[in-house]
Amino acid sequence: MSPAASQPADGATPWVLTLSCPDRPGIVHAVAGLLAEHGGNITESQQFGDPLSGLFFMRVQVTSPAQRSELESALAALSDEFDLTWSLDVAGRPVRTLVMGSTAAHCLNDLAFRQRSENLPVELVAVVSNHTTLEPLAEFYGIPFHHVPVTAATKADAEARLLELVEELDVELVVLARYMQILSDDLCRALSGRVINIHHSFLPSFKGARPYAQAHDRGVKLIGATAHYVTGDLDEGPIIEQDVERVDHSRAVEDLVALGQDVERRALARAVRWHAEHRVLLDGHRTIVFR
Amino acid sequence: MSPAASQPADGATPWVLTLSCPDRPGIVHAVAGLLAEHGGNITESQQFGDPLSGLFFMRVQVTSPAQRSELESALAALSDEFDLTWSLDVAGRPVRTLVMGSTAAHCLNDLAFRQRSENLPVELVAVVSNHTTLEPLAEFYGIPFHHVPVTAATKADAEARLLELVEELDVELVVLARYMQILSDDLCRALSGRVINIHHSFLPSFKGARPYAQAHDRGVKLIGATAHYVTGDLDEGPIIEQDVERVDHSRAVEDLVALGQDVERRALARAVRWHAEHRVLLDGHRTIVFR
Amino acid sequence: MSPAASQPADGATPWVLTLSCPDRPGIVHAVAGLLAEHGGNITESQQFGDPLSGLFFMRVQVTSPAQRSELESALAALSDEFDLTWSLDVAGRPVRTLVMGSTAAHCLNDLAFRQRSENLPVELVAVVSNHTTLEPLAEFYGIPFHHVPVTAATKADAEARLLELVEELDVELVVLARYMQILSDDLCRALSGRVINIHHSFLPSFKGARPYAQAHDRGVKLIGATAHYVTGDLDEGPIIEQDVERVDHSRAVEDLVALGQDVERRALARAVRWHAEHRVLLDGHRTIVFR
Amino acid sequence: MSPAASQPADGATPWVLTLSCPDRPGIVHAVAGLLAEHGGNITESQQFGDPLSGLFFMRVQVTSPAQRSELESALAALSDEFDLTWSLDVAGRPVRTLVMGSTAAHCLNDLAFRQRSENLPVELVAVVSNHTTLEPLAEFYGIPFHHVPVTAATKADAEARLLELVEELDVELVVLARYMQILSDDLCRALSGRVINIHHSFLPSFKGARPYAQAHDRGVKLIGATAHYVTGDLDEGPIIEQDVERVDHSRAVEDLVALGQDVERRALARAVRWHAEHRVLLDGHRTIVFR
Repeated sequence: MSPAASQPADGATPWVLTLSCPDRPGIVHAVAGLLAEHGGNITESQQFGDPLSGLFFMRVQVTSPAQRSELESALAALSDEFDLTWSLDVAGRPVRTLVMGSTAAHCLNDLAFRQRSENLPVELVAVVSNHTTLEPLAEFYGIPFHHVPVTAATKADAEARLLELVEELDVELVVLARYMQILSDDLCRALSGRVINIHHSFLPSFKGARPYAQAHDRGVKLIGATAHYVTGDLDEGPIIEQDVERVDHSRAVEDLVALGQDVERRALARAVRWHAEHRVLLDGHRTIVFR
Repeated sequence: MSPAASQPADGATPWVLTLSCPDRPGIVHAVAGLLAEHGGNITESQQFGDPLSGLFFMRVQVTSPAQRSELESALAALSDEFDLTWSLDVAGRPVRTLVMGSTAAHCLNDLAFRQRSENLPVELVAVVSNHTTLEPLAEFYGIPFHHVPVTAATKADAEARLLELVEELDVELVVLARYMQILSDDLCRALSGRVINIHHSFLPSFKGARPYAQAHDRGVKLIGATAHYVTGDLDEGPIIEQDVERVDHSRAVEDLVALGQDVERRALARAVRWHAEHRVLLDGHRTIVFR
Repeated sequence: MSPAASQPADGATPWVLTLSCPDRPGIVHAVAGLLAEHGGNITESQQFGDPLSGLFFMRVQVTSPAQRSELESALAALSDEFDLTWSLDVAGRPVRTLVMGSTAAHCLNDLAFRQRSENLPVELVAVVSNHTTLEPLAEFYGIPFHHVPVTAATKADAEARLLELVEELDVELVVLARYMQILSDDLCRALSGRVINIHHSFLPSFKGARPYAQAHDRGVKLIGATAHYVTGDLDEGPIIEQDVERVDHSRAVEDLVALGQDVERRALARAVRWHAEHRVLLDGHRTIVFR
Repeated sequence: MSPAASQPADGATPWVLTLSCPDRPGIVHAVAGLLAEHGGNITESQQFGDPLSGLFFMRVQVTSPAQRSELESALAALSDEFDLTWSLDVAGRPVRTLVMGSTAAHCLNDLAFRQRSENLPVELVAVVSNHTTLEPLAEFYGIPFHHVPVTAATKADAEARLLELVEELDVELVVLARYMQILSDDLCRALSGRVINIHHSFLPSFKGARPYAQAHDRGVKLIGATAHYVTGDLDEGPIIEQDVERVDHSRAVEDLVALGQDVERRALARAVRWHAEHRVLLDGHRTIVFR
């Protein structure tokens, strides 16, 4: 959706640079200087200094005729001076994404439709599921479908298969689109920062199973959904996006489930877009989202 | 989504009754009495007396073992006394719906998905379009697709073909899902109260063509969409539902178009659901929506 | 805000009747009949049958020339037949309300302003606080101010004083407008169903102390507030209303506190209005809100 | 609310710099360099290049030990090179504000309360009204009240008196808080960019008088409010902020008026805050809002 995603007429490349480092004066000037030296024209820039962690975060979109290697060399030099953690990518490049699902189709349908029609910058390279319900939908959108059944006995094999696919397909992002299986600690670590889950409650309310039933029982007046990075600590990973929808006493649990699908897919789609556009940076167990 | 849509265990039928009449004391008692006489158990009931028009509106969901003919006879008798306009239907019965579209797929995709996965109580009996873009999507959802090209010269023929389809397929509701063609006055009259359009602005702002460009030019901070019944008076029909989304200065017109798709499909889906559940009653050029 | 709050021209009184009872056919007809026999004209009516508790709930606004005693006798008779719990009041009558606060003024300011300017149907008969900060504000709005200091040693005395005031002033509703003190179990029981608290989080998230600090630490993307009836079980009472506001990473804890004030006062004002208009009924530990 | 509003411990001043200029490479680097040369530490920075107008906009918060004169000299030099329009202020400095009202108190009450309790960075130096209704409220908040009656005959005198007050009191911002009088073209020009009005509709819908009556008649499902800069072209000035609230068929015009008060004060308070924090820049007849 960003205008910078399109190639400028003059052959310059639209880059997106994200970085974080200990906060101190001069960072912005140094980065702006590096980019100016490489003919860069900054089209979007955001920054944030966290007084609690003492860290500084920055995201810059810039068009520059420079080669990637030139920019990377310059950034490496700057990195030594400012102790930067940084990444550089072509703005708008589709991120190679694998979607894991179970039987509910709403999140996959939404992501696939937005990828096709709304320029969601992902390339959906695989759908993995322990059921076959989603196969026709994946097929309709031309996404290879992999049926990987999971039982208590085969869980380790299933996760090994998933890691194989991630490897083979150069997967950059795994989306748990109502996958309903808990990933092992080892898998969480192996894919750290690369797995987004949609939890069907407004976390930290209603962790764990059957959140809509919990919400109904508590009599809440808004239901919610939370898109977050997956860590070994279930439903405790860094939150990327949340949204809610108003409900009232007349709604049964199954109504909340149906209404919640809209909230889930909205929150998930935004989180995936922001991740794919390199707008999400980690600040401890919290996220910086440069929207 | 309504619990009354499911058949009660005891063989009684879930009915939905809507009525309007000149407001006067005793209506509720008379209707409740009629239903009680037929073994009815009221599960949902709403009413509204409009002080401006002097009209009274009511919607009742009731389970009753009575036959349709018995209820209709009783209602006809009551109708004479209170000058009722009424309709009776089986609650949750899917409404036979024809969707007209152009090239944008988001509204059709949303309606078809919700019909399949979220119990939207419609049966999509046809997709009609002046382009062929939507054909694969219609096919995926098993909806017959009709390509009816429209030019200035063939517009009358195209509308005649539409009316034929409405007739042949017993269509109860026509949804203009970003159809982009203006219907003739004659067609509007012929299908009065049975055509829902989604306009891509927060009416009455930005009527007519290119509303997102108008909205961008005016510098609004929220964009919107409006689902309304179609009348001969373009963009002036009774409003069923509206929704908005926050935007800011950084959004170009094409961003508004993309963001607006979410608002459009949400507003349209709600309007179609409420219409299909007989929750929308006309009060002059305004709607009563018994949600 | 309700039109029925104004006295009809013909001398009839606008009544509001609420009731609950075990669900069974014929209730609506019986109530409508009773009201029709007393010349009643129903202007607003809502109902809900809870399939889980098996209870039926109803709220009716009706204008009737009947005397209160006539209506009460008739309702008592009906009550025997249907095992009703009911209450009858004049619609729009201001509910005698005592506000308890600490030092934060936003909730008291909001309630007092709405009472004066927006027809919030309450009469603010006292402000009670363990500080004197709110005294000038109370004075400006002409509300008697009572300074009742609270220490660990004097807590029992302070609660006794509160109960005295409730007694003396015929208080019907106590509002904890960010009072910051926990009421004893005995007091909660004594005032059961008559105390509304505003908790500064989206319950059940962030119970207890410093919820905005908790919310900041968890990195949530929406902050909320919850208005609920107070029970002995802290932050677990029946929820009346909730609302949220979007925040992002750049907000420090003190920003959340400031932003949250808006959410708190909105949620509290709605809860107080609905309670005062007899729109809130208890269904176990959940609320029915007939808006 | 901004952390930068507080004085840093080391004696450096928190500045806020806003600027606009024709877009070209090197601006960010030049500004960051200027600030670095003056020991500046950038704490917040936003920018936007408008592809339509070809203009570049920037807002920077920076702490620097430099004197104002030093910074101004350096900026003047830069200005020549880049053709800058710029302004420099101490971040968090209260903006001298005059509020004009009529009889409705909700906007004045809200602004005065937020100024006192929520760090809204304004100093309310006068309330001017053609009625005396608001005098006690102004007095309670310690704001001098000026009664300036307006009739067709005295309108010119009243405006002259307003300009006098603006002069005498060094007023930087005039807020029309439901003032209900139309300012003359001359006055609009004299105070251009310094007058914010709250219009009680979602502009451009329902311009002019009685917007809630218009909204009710059209049957809209959301009502709104718009805060905008005042120009000679009534209700056409650049929009700063808009907000909406859901309504339904049961709401009479007077209900919309009451509900709308909440929307009006929310939208107005945000617009005043953003203006006072120098977050609003003009881009033709549209606004850039760096939130």
